[in-house]
Amino acid sequence: MPLISQQELQSFVKEIFKAAKSNDEEAGFVAEYLVRANLCGVDSHGIIRVMDYVQAVEEGRMIPNVVPTVVRDRGAMATMDAGLGYGQVGAKAGMELAIKKAREYGTGTVAVYNCNHAGRIAEYPLLAAQNDMLGILMVKAFGAVVAPWGGKGRVLSTSPMSFAIPAKTEPPIVADFATSMSAEGKVRVKAARGEKIPFGWILNSEGKPTDNPADLYNGGALLTFGESKGYSLNLLMEAAGAALSGAGILNAFTGSNGVLALAINIDFFSDVGEFKTRIDSMIKEIRSSPPADGVKEILLPGDPEAREMKKRLANGIPVEDKTWDRLVEVAKKYHVPVPAVQPLQPAPSH
Amino acid sequence: MPLISQQELQSFVKEIFKAAKSNDEEAGFVAEYLVRANLCGVDSHGIIRVMDYVQAVEEGRMIPNVVPTVVRDRGAMATMDAGLGYGQVGAKAGMELAIKKAREYGTGTVAVYNCNHAGRIAEYPLLAAQNDMLGILMVKAFGAVVAPWGGKGRVLSTSPMSFAIPAKTEPPIVADFATSMSAEGKVRVKAARGEKIPFGWILNSEGKPTDNPADLYNGGALLTFGESKGYSLNLLMEAAGAALSGAGILNAFTGSNGVLALAINIDFFSDVGEFKTRIDSMIKEIRSSPPADGVKEILLPGDPEAREMKKRLANGIPVEDKTWDRLVEVAKKYHVPVPAVQPLQPAPSH
Repeated sequence: MPLISQQELQSFVKEIFKAAKSNDEEAGFVAEYLVRANLCGVDSHGIIRVMDYVQAVEEGRMIPNVVPTVVRDRGAMATMDAGLGYGQVGAKAGMELAIKKAREYGTGTVAVYNCNHAGRIAEYPLLAAQNDMLGILMVKAFGAVVAPWGGKGRVLSTSPMSFAIPAKTEPPIVADFATSMSAEGKVRVKAARGEKIPFGWILNSEGKPTDNPADLYNGGALLTFGESKGYSLNLLMEAAGAALSGAGILNAFTGSNGVLALAINIDFFSDVGEFKTRIDSMIKEIRSSPPADGVKEILLPGDPEAREMKKRLANGIPVEDKTWDRLVEVAKKYHVPVPAVQPLQPAPSH
Repeated sequence: MPLISQQELQSFVKEIFKAAKSNDEEAGFVAEYLVRANLCGVDSHGIIRVMDYVQAVEEGRMIPNVVPTVVRDRGAMATMDAGLGYGQVGAKAGMELAIKKAREYGTGTVAVYNCNHAGRIAEYPLLAAQNDMLGILMVKAFGAVVAPWGGKGRVLSTSPMSFAIPAKTEPPIVADFATSMSAEGKVRVKAARGEKIPFGWILNSEGKPTDNPADLYNGGALLTFGESKGYSLNLLMEAAGAALSGAGILNAFTGSNGVLALAINIDFFSDVGEFKTRIDSMIKEIRSSPPADGVKEILLPGDPEAREMKKRLANGIPVEDKTWDRLVEVAKKYHVPVPAVQPLQPAPSH
């Protein structure tokens, strides 16, 4: 398993995107966001996507260098057409416009359609938090693979949401999660490794609980998280991320992903300093509260990613052999030089 | 167990509130919302609360006939002081102002503080849905009884959220749920009946899983739903429902509940008719998808309540003896005539 520094990996990926016709800015920006997902330990939304993206560009499903256009713009809201460009570009443009709206109206709400896969969606509400705003992203995801609560059919998507809350001296609270029990990719990895999954993640083709991940690929379906509560939230993602933008619903939704970006400008509601002090005090109270049996310490949403980032910034990013091989393959195809990487030392056995 | 018609129960409760100093309009409105919770089968948020409300008025914690005041009003947002009046009045005023804002700016976002218990919070986003808007309510609830994810301390509240999505020929999709696994009241009922609860609802005082509901009242704590996802949402409720209004955070939050009401005006984003047709088609696709093993039919959020309402409108509302006795007690204290009720016939055994 190769170990590679952030800078090297980012430059490498940027060059691949440039070779795949993205301009310097877009290539650098998408590379930065993907590599940051790896830095956070969210490898499923990191550079493992490079090959899919390049293939989507080759097949015309994704178009490089698209500038998202504003379709409707009225008061505190707007809708945007991301033109099937890189999803990162569309989602960021949506949140940036929401932030701009929130400066003028107190809140901004922007629906983006014709948006492709946007990577790790914690990135976008963080833009709001950096501007002293609450940021919320509601996403309708591509692909029907989730059963409605009580059902076994693949009707819904893994549609995720994310949000960020700015603090004062503490890092912002940031969360992103699918409304399904698990990402599809996680089940795929378990199936490939021949491992079991916990009961409650999926149903098999007969609509029965199973711990065999392969059942998902034999007519099974993912379940929503938190039973009927996650099911409800999933429908909210459909309404907010898909139907609201005017681009359809469920499988009739066009353009892969739909995004609703909300920015709430704290300054309009409350003193920003006081708000952040309150969030700090909440974080401190949670951290110093007693842990449950067998738990070492209590974490805030965003803590695990921040810790992993610190570690990987210092030590480098481990890339699975298979992912690295595919990266090298696409680099060779596009005549992009492959950086030298050091093999990851296996951890000493105890 | 007495069985009483909606009209009779509502008149009875209205007279009690009037005797407790509410004017005719407030008494009728709060009675209507509470009884509607019973009609929906959500008895925990229905007339069982009458005695608590009257007691809160007696003790000066709740003030009748308060008109919520607008504290900040700028662009698409506002903050309101509900003045420790009935929570139903404060939450409704917040959503109504959000709807008004959304007519002008496309969205409206209103933070309400000094708000008391607002009953069944599905009511408020439904107001938005009736106006062809998406409605979302985020609530910071009173009382620290929920442990953070990984913790065992009572740091967080059961802070719920609700939302409603308008449809065309189908009823609106409407959901409301606590960010804890269970409402505290549900555990209390199980403890009183000497019944077990599922593992995963609470931890005992040692931070260990337990199925004994009494453990909650011996230093235990409720867990968040959906593990860390519900924990994250709970913190969003704190930020949006508590900190944003300027009224504090966690136990330092003043005035029982904090509400953030959001209304998103569909007409600004998309053709309203098309939007509603899309939601209809989603509902139909979900309903007609295959049920899981052992499930008869697939329901939408809001279906169980709508069905129960139909039944109870036709047959009357069953009121538990204990609740009825307490209602009668408070009625006698305030010299309110008690309506005659018929005893509920026990269901025939098969």
